[in-house]
Amino acid sequence: MAGNRAVAYVEPGKVEVQEIPYPTLELRDGPGVHPANVGRQCQHGVILKVVTTNICGSDQHMVRGRTSAPRDLVLGHEILGEVVEVGRDVEFVKVGDLCSVPFNIACGRCRNCKEGKTGICLTVNPDRPGSAYGYVDMGGWVGGQAEYVMVPYADWNLLRFPDRDQAMAKILDLTMLSDIFPTGFHGAVTAGVRPGSTVYVAGAGPVGLAAAAGARLLGAAVVIVGDLIPERLDRARRAGFEAVDVSLGDPADQVEQILGVPEVDAAVDAVGFEARGHGAGAAQEAPATVLNSLMELTSAGGAIGIPGLYVTADPGAVDEPARRGSLSLGLGTGWAKSLSFTTGQCPVMRYNRSLMMAILHDRVSIADVVGATVISLDDAPQGYADFDGGAARKYVIDPHGMVGATSAVAAG
Amino acid sequence: MAGNRAVAYVEPGKVEVQEIPYPTLELRDGPGVHPANVGRQCQHGVILKVVTTNICGSDQHMVRGRTSAPRDLVLGHEILGEVVEVGRDVEFVKVGDLCSVPFNIACGRCRNCKEGKTGICLTVNPDRPGSAYGYVDMGGWVGGQAEYVMVPYADWNLLRFPDRDQAMAKILDLTMLSDIFPTGFHGAVTAGVRPGSTVYVAGAGPVGLAAAAGARLLGAAVVIVGDLIPERLDRARRAGFEAVDVSLGDPADQVEQILGVPEVDAAVDAVGFEARGHGAGAAQEAPATVLNSLMELTSAGGAIGIPGLYVTADPGAVDEPARRGSLSLGLGTGWAKSLSFTTGQCPVMRYNRSLMMAILHDRVSIADVVGATVISLDDAPQGYADFDGGAARKYVIDPHGMVGATSAVAAG
Amino acid sequence: MAGNRAVAYVEPGKVEVQEIPYPTLELRDGPGVHPANVGRQCQHGVILKVVTTNICGSDQHMVRGRTSAPRDLVLGHEILGEVVEVGRDVEFVKVGDLCSVPFNIACGRCRNCKEGKTGICLTVNPDRPGSAYGYVDMGGWVGGQAEYVMVPYADWNLLRFPDRDQAMAKILDLTMLSDIFPTGFHGAVTAGVRPGSTVYVAGAGPVGLAAAAGARLLGAAVVIVGDLIPERLDRARRAGFEAVDVSLGDPADQVEQILGVPEVDAAVDAVGFEARGHGAGAAQEAPATVLNSLMELTSAGGAIGIPGLYVTADPGAVDEPARRGSLSLGLGTGWAKSLSFTTGQCPVMRYNRSLMMAILHDRVSIADVVGATVISLDDAPQGYADFDGGAARKYVIDPHGMVGATSAVAAG
Amino acid sequence: MAGNRAVAYVEPGKVEVQEIPYPTLELRDGPGVHPANVGRQCQHGVILKVVTTNICGSDQHMVRGRTSAPRDLVLGHEILGEVVEVGRDVEFVKVGDLCSVPFNIACGRCRNCKEGKTGICLTVNPDRPGSAYGYVDMGGWVGGQAEYVMVPYADWNLLRFPDRDQAMAKILDLTMLSDIFPTGFHGAVTAGVRPGSTVYVAGAGPVGLAAAAGARLLGAAVVIVGDLIPERLDRARRAGFEAVDVSLGDPADQVEQILGVPEVDAAVDAVGFEARGHGAGAAQEAPATVLNSLMELTSAGGAIGIPGLYVTADPGAVDEPARRGSLSLGLGTGWAKSLSFTTGQCPVMRYNRSLMMAILHDRVSIADVVGATVISLDDAPQGYADFDGGAARKYVIDPHGMVGATSAVAAG
Repeated sequence: MAGNRAVAYVEPGKVEVQEIPYPTLELRDGPGVHPANVGRQCQHGVILKVVTTNICGSDQHMVRGRTSAPRDLVLGHEILGEVVEVGRDVEFVKVGDLCSVPFNIACGRCRNCKEGKTGICLTVNPDRPGSAYGYVDMGGWVGGQAEYVMVPYADWNLLRFPDRDQAMAKILDLTMLSDIFPTGFHGAVTAGVRPGSTVYVAGAGPVGLAAAAGARLLGAAVVIVGDLIPERLDRARRAGFEAVDVSLGDPADQVEQILGVPEVDAAVDAVGFEARGHGAGAAQEAPATVLNSLMELTSAGGAIGIPGLYVTADPGAVDEPARRGSLSLGLGTGWAKSLSFTTGQCPVMRYNRSLMMAILHDRVSIADVVGATVISLDDAPQGYADFDGGAARKYVIDPHGMVGATSAVAAG
Repeated sequence: MAGNRAVAYVEPGKVEVQEIPYPTLELRDGPGVHPANVGRQCQHGVILKVVTTNICGSDQHMVRGRTSAPRDLVLGHEILGEVVEVGRDVEFVKVGDLCSVPFNIACGRCRNCKEGKTGICLTVNPDRPGSAYGYVDMGGWVGGQAEYVMVPYADWNLLRFPDRDQAMAKILDLTMLSDIFPTGFHGAVTAGVRPGSTVYVAGAGPVGLAAAAGARLLGAAVVIVGDLIPERLDRARRAGFEAVDVSLGDPADQVEQILGVPEVDAAVDAVGFEARGHGAGAAQEAPATVLNSLMELTSAGGAIGIPGLYVTADPGAVDEPARRGSLSLGLGTGWAKSLSFTTGQCPVMRYNRSLMMAILHDRVSIADVVGATVISLDDAPQGYADFDGGAARKYVIDPHGMVGATSAVAAG
Repeated sequence: MAGNRAVAYVEPGKVEVQEIPYPTLELRDGPGVHPANVGRQCQHGVILKVVTTNICGSDQHMVRGRTSAPRDLVLGHEILGEVVEVGRDVEFVKVGDLCSVPFNIACGRCRNCKEGKTGICLTVNPDRPGSAYGYVDMGGWVGGQAEYVMVPYADWNLLRFPDRDQAMAKILDLTMLSDIFPTGFHGAVTAGVRPGSTVYVAGAGPVGLAAAAGARLLGAAVVIVGDLIPERLDRARRAGFEAVDVSLGDPADQVEQILGVPEVDAAVDAVGFEARGHGAGAAQEAPATVLNSLMELTSAGGAIGIPGLYVTADPGAVDEPARRGSLSLGLGTGWAKSLSFTTGQCPVMRYNRSLMMAILHDRVSIADVVGATVISLDDAPQGYADFDGGAARKYVIDPHGMVGATSAVAAG
Repeated sequence: MAGNRAVAYVEPGKVEVQEIPYPTLELRDGPGVHPANVGRQCQHGVILKVVTTNICGSDQHMVRGRTSAPRDLVLGHEILGEVVEVGRDVEFVKVGDLCSVPFNIACGRCRNCKEGKTGICLTVNPDRPGSAYGYVDMGGWVGGQAEYVMVPYADWNLLRFPDRDQAMAKILDLTMLSDIFPTGFHGAVTAGVRPGSTVYVAGAGPVGLAAAAGARLLGAAVVIVGDLIPERLDRARRAGFEAVDVSLGDPADQVEQILGVPEVDAAVDAVGFEARGHGAGAAQEAPATVLNSLMELTSAGGAIGIPGLYVTADPGAVDEPARRGSLSLGLGTGWAKSLSFTTGQCPVMRYNRSLMMAILHDRVSIADVVGATVISLDDAPQGYADFDGGAARKYVIDPHGMVGATSAVAAG
């Protein structure tokens, strides 16, 4: 049996590559594993050799110490891999299949899964609906920023690529199917984007750019992305989106310069609770800024998709209400405009097959849009640091060196 | 030309019946009329002899002095009447037609009206999308708690009853089509109610009870209504709904006693910004209480319909944030459960014809559910006072004595 | 190990109760089993002790000899039972659970199942998408008109009742959840029925009556059912629906008498390819009659739900085109009215939980509506004969005598 | 007052340019005007100076003599123009506005218009729901292949372009908004096209190509267009679509070569009742060929959008059933796959604003896709002949020479 190496959270600001056990078809005890999940049998699962696994902005919440993540928690919920072992209850997935793994772990057997709500599966997380690999308070499923990882309920969860060579040729695009591309797309869908829409996306990080790409794929006429970081705004412009620099002040003025009106049909919050203020206030956290701003920016009758994470408690927040997860929202502004709001984890399975088809048939180059950048497993700690510093890149860990130099250059 | 008498707002706590001009097919200057609307020609309009016109909870916001409504503003946006004069540009509505008037005034010619979003018509209110009769900051269209009223864009706005006698026999049900029945129904629809749903409605006032009736019409399995006022809870029980007394504390416990679980599939906020606390806190206003409570009560994947009014500014609020219309919301709780939220005025036209059919074919007795109670125009000030005191009734003004004693008794 | 007795098709016009093997968690060879399914392992399955199993109109197609069903095919796809054995891969279903079985067999692991399209599962039937128990050309899964039956993919397929005693008290209603209630409801949903709709259902057999009950649960204002058989029309009337006797001629005239107009908002075809003509033509089959009639009856902009079965080949048909499964449809009539049409097996899982809630909370009495009538397994052949003769009843087989006399009487 | 010249139908195979009266705000008697519409007052209307007006495939049905169109019927329902006179009841449209005219005439005041179903307006055509300019049996509204035309209910019907210069620069794209672009798009929408879909469009005429462009705008992964005419297939290929030559036989084989499977997710019938057979049968009409073929081509769970016209009677049809508008459809094939079908006129208003935005912001070049070709009014008869001969072009009549040479070349 092979060994296994993985990226683990150590303490605020620090991750490291550790030796961990090779996965088995059982969820064994370990850092962050919920007691009720210890010993859970997973003959419905498979072992994946990880081909690519990406660093996600939501990993940063843990690494910054904004959560109760335990020491040595193995990170990583954005996973693409090759099946190397299948449990006895797996019927349709085969050894050798190259697959994308939705970040939401789902059983495919509960009421919510039967309704397609895989982001809030009722059985995989003893604490509450919904789960993910390598994440605090999500049941303790071991993360995939590793050489090997176990994926439970594999027939249900895995998306198999139809042709291995075709998939390897687009591997940096396909690796975005586990989370950010569906997550951004879900933001656009729930914002009501349709052909001809004008769209504002708050946040030019990977999810924001994926939301912008998703909006364009849905036929949006104009897609505007707002952020504070010049490199991220540059990347948005290079991908063909309009850019708004919120460090210059209220985005409405810049939106009006672009569209002739200070409002858009649809808006996406791809920032979440770690939002900063606009204009002169940009230096400090202001967790309700984005949502209040989007209520102003969205025209009457519009909708706001909220893939950006909001938490129930935030010990590191700037003030007491924010520490309790409470936001000061001007809901009356939204009410007067008959706005609607959709929150929560993206149910990746709802979209990943469609987006795979769009990638395989050259309808979207999501790797280019988000700046996919291949790094080795050993470089993961540096990737975390760079991403936290605002690098306008999406770091793709290549634990087995299977992706190669060509792809890495392509993402430049 | 006949005279006209109407209910007008005088000062906080006081309304009175005044002589006002008989309406013409022009919006003339008067209390609350926006300067840009003064002199607006309405040959597309009709004059209605008002048969019934109801007192609405949202009228109370003005009467309590919680708004900037001017002295002598004529009140009333819930109107049912007979056409007595038609403008030269009216093509399909005829003199003698008995019609329901949606409370939202809409032009039928702007982008939003063409999309069915009549609650946010772009042309009738110079200040912002959306308008209503007899309401502050809504453009100044004269209210309908009067003997006669002008309805603009009559071919578009009016819902004609197919048979006059049939309609008069159900007039107390049909009078609810102008606002509360569609408004409550919209709350239920946007909460995602469908056959088999479990539903919680916050507020057992007329809109809450209409939401409950709407949920039942949509096939809900269990409909629970929460309130503080015993008489309103009694009415809810008599109408066949489960009742939760929020003065006893957190509704989750009582919901669990009813359903076996402390959560529902769908929730409706029929209270709005004048909410009070639960349990021991029930004595004082706590504007975010209802929404925070509904996020706890709604199960993962659910939706919250918010027909209850939230305002952009509330000079009479309990604290500074509330005065700015800012609510302290635990959005993280909703986000963790992937909830969605729909706010705003109900676009009455989307539902009124369907609900009329349900009434005419005996599928729902909305007058009984809400306790329709007929009063004369002269009794309107007393009706306002009683309703403000928490009377579990819906007051229906009968300015011409056309409804008669039988109906009034039926609603007892 | 117990024995097993079941209802089997013998030859046109003849079914009989036979001894068959007790089921195992493997699909063994037998009458009608597809070679590719022989030996299929089903550790994901359970053995059910059948509590109720109903005779369905689509069984009659086989029994009348209108299909290529092989001799000794075990019939029965409407099953409710108690779990007596679980496969090693079953995780959430437990021995003792009382469950409804959707007639569509689905794997819960293919693309279509993941999209909620369980009526066209891609893996359970080697011939084409979609399968069912005890049905010709559906892969060969053994029917459930038996004492015991094996249900594959049990975590996915089974709907567990929350409380056994509560369920037994409504067992004749709940037994309709395996097929006809969801099937009729699907017809109503796909016909666009909503609160206030006027609805015409062609066919007053059990599916037609279930469609009518479904339409009422969806809030329809008026539900009209058409048929040729007086007893069925009587049952429709007793259930509170309007009835149209198509033996008297074109239904449009009778619809006009009921509604004042000769058209409805929504229509359901609960008859299918064995339709007979209207009026004087009622004596003979006319497979396109119902659909052509519904295109006339449905108002512009409406929709037609088609749960009634249409086949790709019908050796027993009246003429050559019908034998090829070809219908002579006046599609231009539908086109001029912008109608839409939805065909196919109902995906039972989409609706059964919702409808269970409606039953358990007394929102619908589907057993009464369709005339549920309990018979023993030995009486099943007589039940087939009576049902084929037009009995206005839905026969519920009670193989173990668990349902008892009270329920049987209640359905009278 | 100016004169007016227009294209009129004379007899089968013959159209000519005639002098006709300059329009007024009244529908006067004339060829094809319904008696109940004669003298209809249209102060809600405007007079347009026609900037562009296109020849449509559905005009050809009349010109080929397949309808009862009367001699001297003025043709043309695809109209873009400048407002030169407004009726007294027009409130928001102004003289000088440059506007697109939806081909469906709608009142904006009936039940169907209020529901957004402008293709089946109840009041403009005395014969049945739905109307159009210059078309037989549509109420008699005068066609727009003319210098000037009257548009009723102008506030409701007209789509105003936000900037005149911007619009003139894209006039050949924008002229497609009156019919074929929305019509093709509606076909794609009702076929369920979404990001990642595989799509087959039957027919590479202008509507088929517009459906293909619409499918691409909706995010389709692969769009395949089938036709018999080499020039049309060439145009499809040049626009970036896959092409299937149905003269070579059953399209399933060619689809399989393209996709690896012989089925698509979604299909559009852009041919209608004048369909010809496939392969060796291509020489003769076979009105059910396309629909039967699409039922084979569409995978289980898919949908078929049917913008192609099917008629209630076709005197020129090949056989008696077709003359009665009856098609021999293998509906069982569709039923077994749970397909759905949507027919009818596109409600242009539902889409035209969105598609205008997509054009103005360079998301689609519909003029290039369909081969927009500018001709003068006097060249219209030749345009009709060329189009009837299978020219792979969309003829745009420029009655006042306002479009100019540059645009015409661009469409080459």
